[in-house]
Amino acid sequence: MLIIMRPDFSEAQCLRVEDAVRAMGYQPVRVPGAGRTAVCVTGNRGPVDDSYISRLPGVAHCHRITKPFKLVSRDSHPTDTVIRIGDVVIGEGDPVLVAGPGSIETEARTLAVARAVRRAGAGIFRARLWSERIGPYEFAGVGDEGLHTLREVREELGIAVIAEVVDPRSAERVAEIVDAVQIPARHMENEPLFEAAAGLARPVILDRGPAATVEEWLMAAERLLARGQREVILCERGIRAMGHRRTLLDLHAVPVVRQISHLPVLVDPSRAVAERGRVRPLARAALAVGASGLLLEVHTTPDTAYTDPKQTVDVPTFTGIVEDLAVMRGLTPLSPAPPPT
Amino acid sequence: MLIIMRPDFSEAQCLRVEDAVRAMGYQPVRVPGAGRTAVCVTGNRGPVDDSYISRLPGVAHCHRITKPFKLVSRDSHPTDTVIRIGDVVIGEGDPVLVAGPGSIETEARTLAVARAVRRAGAGIFRARLWSERIGPYEFAGVGDEGLHTLREVREELGIAVIAEVVDPRSAERVAEIVDAVQIPARHMENEPLFEAAAGLARPVILDRGPAATVEEWLMAAERLLARGQREVILCERGIRAMGHRRTLLDLHAVPVVRQISHLPVLVDPSRAVAERGRVRPLARAALAVGASGLLLEVHTTPDTAYTDPKQTVDVPTFTGIVEDLAVMRGLTPLSPAPPPT
Amino acid sequence: MLIIMRPDFSEAQCLRVEDAVRAMGYQPVRVPGAGRTAVCVTGNRGPVDDSYISRLPGVAHCHRITKPFKLVSRDSHPTDTVIRIGDVVIGEGDPVLVAGPGSIETEARTLAVARAVRRAGAGIFRARLWSERIGPYEFAGVGDEGLHTLREVREELGIAVIAEVVDPRSAERVAEIVDAVQIPARHMENEPLFEAAAGLARPVILDRGPAATVEEWLMAAERLLARGQREVILCERGIRAMGHRRTLLDLHAVPVVRQISHLPVLVDPSRAVAERGRVRPLARAALAVGASGLLLEVHTTPDTAYTDPKQTVDVPTFTGIVEDLAVMRGLTPLSPAPPPT
Amino acid sequence: MLIIMRPDFSEAQCLRVEDAVRAMGYQPVRVPGAGRTAVCVTGNRGPVDDSYISRLPGVAHCHRITKPFKLVSRDSHPTDTVIRIGDVVIGEGDPVLVAGPGSIETEARTLAVARAVRRAGAGIFRARLWSERIGPYEFAGVGDEGLHTLREVREELGIAVIAEVVDPRSAERVAEIVDAVQIPARHMENEPLFEAAAGLARPVILDRGPAATVEEWLMAAERLLARGQREVILCERGIRAMGHRRTLLDLHAVPVVRQISHLPVLVDPSRAVAERGRVRPLARAALAVGASGLLLEVHTTPDTAYTDPKQTVDVPTFTGIVEDLAVMRGLTPLSPAPPPT
Repeated sequence: MLIIMRPDFSEAQCLRVEDAVRAMGYQPVRVPGAGRTAVCVTGNRGPVDDSYISRLPGVAHCHRITKPFKLVSRDSHPTDTVIRIGDVVIGEGDPVLVAGPGSIETEARTLAVARAVRRAGAGIFRARLWSERIGPYEFAGVGDEGLHTLREVREELGIAVIAEVVDPRSAERVAEIVDAVQIPARHMENEPLFEAAAGLARPVILDRGPAATVEEWLMAAERLLARGQREVILCERGIRAMGHRRTLLDLHAVPVVRQISHLPVLVDPSRAVAERGRVRPLARAALAVGASGLLLEVHTTPDTAYTDPKQTVDVPTFTGIVEDLAVMRGLTPLSPAPPPT
Repeated sequence: MLIIMRPDFSEAQCLRVEDAVRAMGYQPVRVPGAGRTAVCVTGNRGPVDDSYISRLPGVAHCHRITKPFKLVSRDSHPTDTVIRIGDVVIGEGDPVLVAGPGSIETEARTLAVARAVRRAGAGIFRARLWSERIGPYEFAGVGDEGLHTLREVREELGIAVIAEVVDPRSAERVAEIVDAVQIPARHMENEPLFEAAAGLARPVILDRGPAATVEEWLMAAERLLARGQREVILCERGIRAMGHRRTLLDLHAVPVVRQISHLPVLVDPSRAVAERGRVRPLARAALAVGASGLLLEVHTTPDTAYTDPKQTVDVPTFTGIVEDLAVMRGLTPLSPAPPPT
Repeated sequence: MLIIMRPDFSEAQCLRVEDAVRAMGYQPVRVPGAGRTAVCVTGNRGPVDDSYISRLPGVAHCHRITKPFKLVSRDSHPTDTVIRIGDVVIGEGDPVLVAGPGSIETEARTLAVARAVRRAGAGIFRARLWSERIGPYEFAGVGDEGLHTLREVREELGIAVIAEVVDPRSAERVAEIVDAVQIPARHMENEPLFEAAAGLARPVILDRGPAATVEEWLMAAERLLARGQREVILCERGIRAMGHRRTLLDLHAVPVVRQISHLPVLVDPSRAVAERGRVRPLARAALAVGASGLLLEVHTTPDTAYTDPKQTVDVPTFTGIVEDLAVMRGLTPLSPAPPPT
Repeated sequence: MLIIMRPDFSEAQCLRVEDAVRAMGYQPVRVPGAGRTAVCVTGNRGPVDDSYISRLPGVAHCHRITKPFKLVSRDSHPTDTVIRIGDVVIGEGDPVLVAGPGSIETEARTLAVARAVRRAGAGIFRARLWSERIGPYEFAGVGDEGLHTLREVREELGIAVIAEVVDPRSAERVAEIVDAVQIPARHMENEPLFEAAAGLARPVILDRGPAATVEEWLMAAERLLARGQREVILCERGIRAMGHRRTLLDLHAVPVVRQISHLPVLVDPSRAVAERGRVRPLARAALAVGASGLLLEVHTTPDTAYTDPKQTVDVPTFTGIVEDLAVMRGLTPLSPAPPPT
């Protein structure tokens, strides 16, 4: 249930509402917004009796939520959530381009890539500490040592940096260096990692798992919001589907998520297509369908990249995507469709 | 195997090559092209001995094809195939917009839709004779009677028209009226229908089946080409994938097909997304990824459409897509990526 | 809606009920059963008003059906449907074993296989007239000529024979020779073929399409029943799923179908697994899960089979499956689970 | 590469071989077996030069491995791996039945279930500490507190117990109490958890992720083996597939894994089917196809189970499965098929 406060409500009224919710055995979560403030009731397993609460001072009305997700839903937060990573704004205005090598490499090589993508127009730099390898005999990534390299990139170029968290024990350490953390697809339901990520004072980019439905992905985001992490950005990066490719980019997911949720959605075509020559066409499609930004694996010398050379594009291709974005700016913005009845 | 003729080859030389292929027990298929002519050897189950043929007069060289498809491949026809439906050109220049109601309705209603989409910018009119219903109790379509209506649309508006063929017995009758026929997804492997469609003097639009890999879809096209139907247009319209939607538009398929094949590829977002509010975003994505055109279900009063009202857009939305296409014209054309090694 | 007649109803009463249904603009379909007779109302798009009909003489009560399928449902026919192919009974007692080569080969070879599988315990012989090839350059099957061979098998061995129908123009001709026809998976939604098959005086085995949900498959069966074909047998033969194999046998489908429908379900592990060494384990699983029988590709010399040699088992393996069936006879029969609430 | 030692090799010879491998920059992993001992070379990215090593004393011959997995493969360990959990043997003889409630409940309720399944024939007791919930508002499981309950079950009934590990920080604590740990499907690629699990002196049951191919699952097992965890048991529990059910049990996976790998494979039909009435038919199918055992959610009062009541069966159903297993004992054991060429 969602308790919508009157425009002129006082803090004391809101605290009293929250106490009343607790007295019923549930957890109140306050959802401030541009036009209105609401208190979301969580922890209930069935309909909540609103007869008492709806008459408390400062309460405008109560609204029943029948969907399994509450805090991620536009019901509780009708306007788009806007999140800042460094000095870049995500969720309004131009889509953001996040670029970098698949993994952090040597400091010199990593800085070279960072300078090149920064110059070409990247808003944020991203590189993995740990490689998303399949087997034990592939390159494992530089690990924690890469944090030093990320700090160099940040200081030298003044660009915001992103790296992933995979272990609850090191999440805090990563967050001290980076401007936002990413939860990789294979950890989309890693509960102990969620607990750690929820407590970080950094935005969290939540990858969709390759077998997750949109609903399951939103429920994973709901877990972060329910623990107090307000700055969640979703990232579509391909789902498993029959056929000959590793994953298939689910671009339907972008308008579907925008319809249901107020959270921004990035798209990562590099991971999804797993082949260099297809990255730019799919990047265009992702921008066209309404993504809030792109995550791209870019390298100055892609063939020598430590991870994923086949899917890593070169800097001229990235520059082309920056130009594509400029053309797409001519498209009329579409508001999210009303949910299907 | 592909026998590439010299630029100055004579007809007699080519006939002799074809006879030599037949003498080896295989079938020759001549593939004329802008820059070169080739003879494709079909019917062999293993490598073909080229020692004799490669020395025949007029032969430049022989080229082994290791992929299962030959005639659809860029190996046998390196440049894009361009196909004309009525006065509309598909496969070069601007993407074509094909629009119309899900099914043919009454003559008056159908004409009203045709006039509206024509005025808004549709290049071709399409409407089904038979509804793609799931069960026996849904609207079955008007059937053969609709041919009269299509003829009216064609004559009154001077617009090319498309309808589907589903029965080998009536394929010829449909082809007499329309400018191109469409083989629906559920008939993608209907061999007797293929035999009938291969013999029609009309371009054939071949839908991808919802469980077909790109290779299987191209092999289905190969069956048409092997029987002498040169004018084949592919149409991606969604594949089955886990999650909550009917099908998922496989936009990877567009660059993948362009890489492998010279045939044009249309995209049908209406069938794939099955929800009105998502058609325009996905139409944009399909144009951005490089489709040769779109098939769209459009109606003057979508809620009253005889079939698929939920996925049918209104005329203003279609007009918006025409505008989107104009913006996308600013994107640099991308040549097909070289095939992965 | 389902109109359940009283146990002592007269033919005149039933005719009057059917007239009343027609008068309301719907189609009545009579469903006789062991314990009761019902009249199913079809063609309605919403709830039917039963106030008049429920008071007609001979009517016990009216029962609303909310599922999209009616005639295939246990609601309209609570007991298992039992179908006879030649002298073999399907749907009660022991599961039936249908065996034969992937395609009809020469008469001598085909008869050799038929004799061997008959001797080993096959109840029915099955071989395809047309090969389920992917591309135009593979073996196409012997076609109509194979009917003569099937007649020989039938006459010499006294065994029932099955072949597939793929073309509405030849369905009648096939049905004259065989004891049952099979609609291949790739024709699961071929409407003109359904019309032809519905009119045949032979049981119809309906393959599940590789991308069809259980509901869509049952709706396809509903189309046959709605046109008067009462003898429909379902056949699960693998669906598309991510991973490295052609298809995945959906053995959940067997208890799910038995729960919803009264129709028998066969399982074809050969098509599904596409590899010889996995046929017997999956055949065991299919028998264990409750299939009404198996369709198996068996050959005296599998490596030389004209089609599908990789998935064709030899006669000793088939004999092993016959022995497995004998062991499984010791399992307690399970009644279909009540539908989930 | 695999270095096969002669039957009469000495320890000193093997150590010298291992040193030689290290000198080439790779990691040796010794693989002892019933009939032979091998040293597996890991860490190489291409073919290894065997000219020196193959001539070392005690070396029989060298064998190139072209598959991505080595230690899980039958190439390195041809005979079935047999693993002991408590006094139960897995991987030879009768399949093992593992049973228990979805989650640990109160001590009294959990003990009641344990006593009932023990009496009915369960070889091992399993219950989750943490619920596999989708959203933040569902029952989260009792957590670490449940370890006390598991200890009670173990001591009172003398039955081996299994619980899952999800957090590297608590893996050791769980392993102190239980006889084997389980890595849940959603953690199939959780690298930090793998590091922790590899070091435990307990067998590890590795669930297949719902979007993992068999190869990816085996590569996950390879990661455990490469870190020295020799006692790995695989568990198939359903993959995502189109259609109306949560997951589809991939029973092909059992013969496929047995063909490639020496590790035992369990099947969990409860998680996969998500509906009580389908558990026993699928349990039968899993036993028939050759699973090394079953994991089943069983409760004395299933409707009141804290988690997954819909998929939890009652004790009489479990007793029925024990009887089914006795019948299946009559089936001839099948040896794993040779790998496809």
